[in-house]
Amino acid sequence: MGLSPLQSIHMTEKNSIKVVDKIKDMQTLSSNIRKEGRIISFVPTMGALHEGHLSLIRKAKEKGEFLVVSIFVNPTQFGPNEDYKKYTRDLESDLRKIKEIGVDVVFSPDINEIYPDGFETYVEVQELQKPLCGQFRPGHFKGVGTIVLKLFNIVKPDIAIFGEKDYQQLKIIQKMARDLHLEIEVIGLPIIREDDGLALSSRNAYLSKKEREQARALSEALGEIRMRFNQGQNDISDLIHEGREVLNKSLIYDIDYLEIRNGNTLEGKEKAKSGDLVAIAAKIGHTRLIDNIKL
Amino acid sequence: MGLSPLQSIHMTEKNSIKVVDKIKDMQTLSSNIRKEGRIISFVPTMGALHEGHLSLIRKAKEKGEFLVVSIFVNPTQFGPNEDYKKYTRDLESDLRKIKEIGVDVVFSPDINEIYPDGFETYVEVQELQKPLCGQFRPGHFKGVGTIVLKLFNIVKPDIAIFGEKDYQQLKIIQKMARDLHLEIEVIGLPIIREDDGLALSSRNAYLSKKEREQARALSEALGEIRMRFNQGQNDISDLIHEGREVLNKSLIYDIDYLEIRNGNTLEGKEKAKSGDLVAIAAKIGHTRLIDNIKL
Repeated sequence: MGLSPLQSIHMTEKNSIKVVDKIKDMQTLSSNIRKEGRIISFVPTMGALHEGHLSLIRKAKEKGEFLVVSIFVNPTQFGPNEDYKKYTRDLESDLRKIKEIGVDVVFSPDINEIYPDGFETYVEVQELQKPLCGQFRPGHFKGVGTIVLKLFNIVKPDIAIFGEKDYQQLKIIQKMARDLHLEIEVIGLPIIREDDGLALSSRNAYLSKKEREQARALSEALGEIRMRFNQGQNDISDLIHEGREVLNKSLIYDIDYLEIRNGNTLEGKEKAKSGDLVAIAAKIGHTRLIDNIKL
Repeated sequence: MGLSPLQSIHMTEKNSIKVVDKIKDMQTLSSNIRKEGRIISFVPTMGALHEGHLSLIRKAKEKGEFLVVSIFVNPTQFGPNEDYKKYTRDLESDLRKIKEIGVDVVFSPDINEIYPDGFETYVEVQELQKPLCGQFRPGHFKGVGTIVLKLFNIVKPDIAIFGEKDYQQLKIIQKMARDLHLEIEVIGLPIIREDDGLALSSRNAYLSKKEREQARALSEALGEIRMRFNQGQNDISDLIHEGREVLNKSLIYDIDYLEIRNGNTLEGKEKAKSGDLVAIAAKIGHTRLIDNIKL
């Protein structure tokens, strides 16, 4: 036997989970693991973990032989008036939540480690980033693509798992991986929902009790559209109209978009087809939430 | 002993050099070589090889244990009115030139292999790409950064070697490698010149006899500036003026730029200092040539 792959890697141990915070250490560790021929699976997160994240991490545990979770609130994907500062940061609590899954290493770098002075290299998936959230969050997907590419180059996974809740993000990362010849299988997993249908999100924590009530209308609107489609309606403007009625009934008027698009290319269309994506982004009070389903 | 690293890789042999043209084959081959612990050195080129390229390839041979040269005329780095179509393509001749160096594999993919339908992911080094050639060739460095990142992900080198003739390109790739955490040592090597000082370039082949005479003024202008700097002049506008005089004497008036900038950041300045870059781009007839020296 050679040296342990953890040999000479600087890491701390918190809640019995190994935490690495330097890029060089993570890269050395991942290289050592790969040299042993073990499959690295990876779930990148911004922390504030909920059951949605845990479902990804559990699947990653199943699919890989060495499981890395990253926790990093990425500034470059937040707009100037977005919630970067107030985004929940609680590493101890996050570690507690994933403790029983058997994560091998949490990579939790400092912001200056990831974006040192003079950082200026960005990646963009030019077309897929345009519609939906791309229209309302300029620069968001540029920030997402860039941090994910950086994390991929640091963690060097064989498999990376993302949630379908951020559907456009998932498609962008899959395209980026293909276009840049990354040898990483990028897997998307279904949305996890509350009992009333609300998609789990770290941002649900911002909702007041009354807003939480209203928020169920998002998934209800998507459900209404799918029901009507299943009944034979396929005119998209009609379907969207029905969805908006549901939202308005719950006094949700601040709707960034409610759209039906091709589920692979995200291209717009006039007639709905099986496999199409129905996606919504709306503000409940000050909280912007997104959700989607497939027809 | 296990299987040969070349086992199951599809390749042809031309002029006794192994040529791989599929991404997947190149990636598998490079993975096999890396698993053996051998150091991969890499020189990306657009073919039309001259002594400048050969100096890079020889150095790469020295520094690595498995030497890959790529030959690919990259469309995304040419502007709409540039010389993409007429750029010299002669694989047989290129292979003949590098035959005696001992290149292990030439990677020479088809354009559709590198840019399949739907390709849309690009990388940009935002600040370094702005001055000098960036001002006159919009999109050029976006194309360069993107193809180099793709080639790095395909060839997976430990060491990559570029010429200092494309000085801004070298700086951009070094920055990209740092910013994206690529574990690749990006090395720049000095310009190789003709006896009269003209920097070697594949585009020199476009010059008429008379233009070839004129072209020596480019390096002469740079030399004049350096000489005056060494004599104690450091006012940049004065130095540039002297350089332009040399060009004009040779009837070169179509000058994209003649500038002195910080050799690392490429930032503009007023007073010249040791280590600064003096860079020029000018058209001789229809042929755009570049050159540079350090003070």
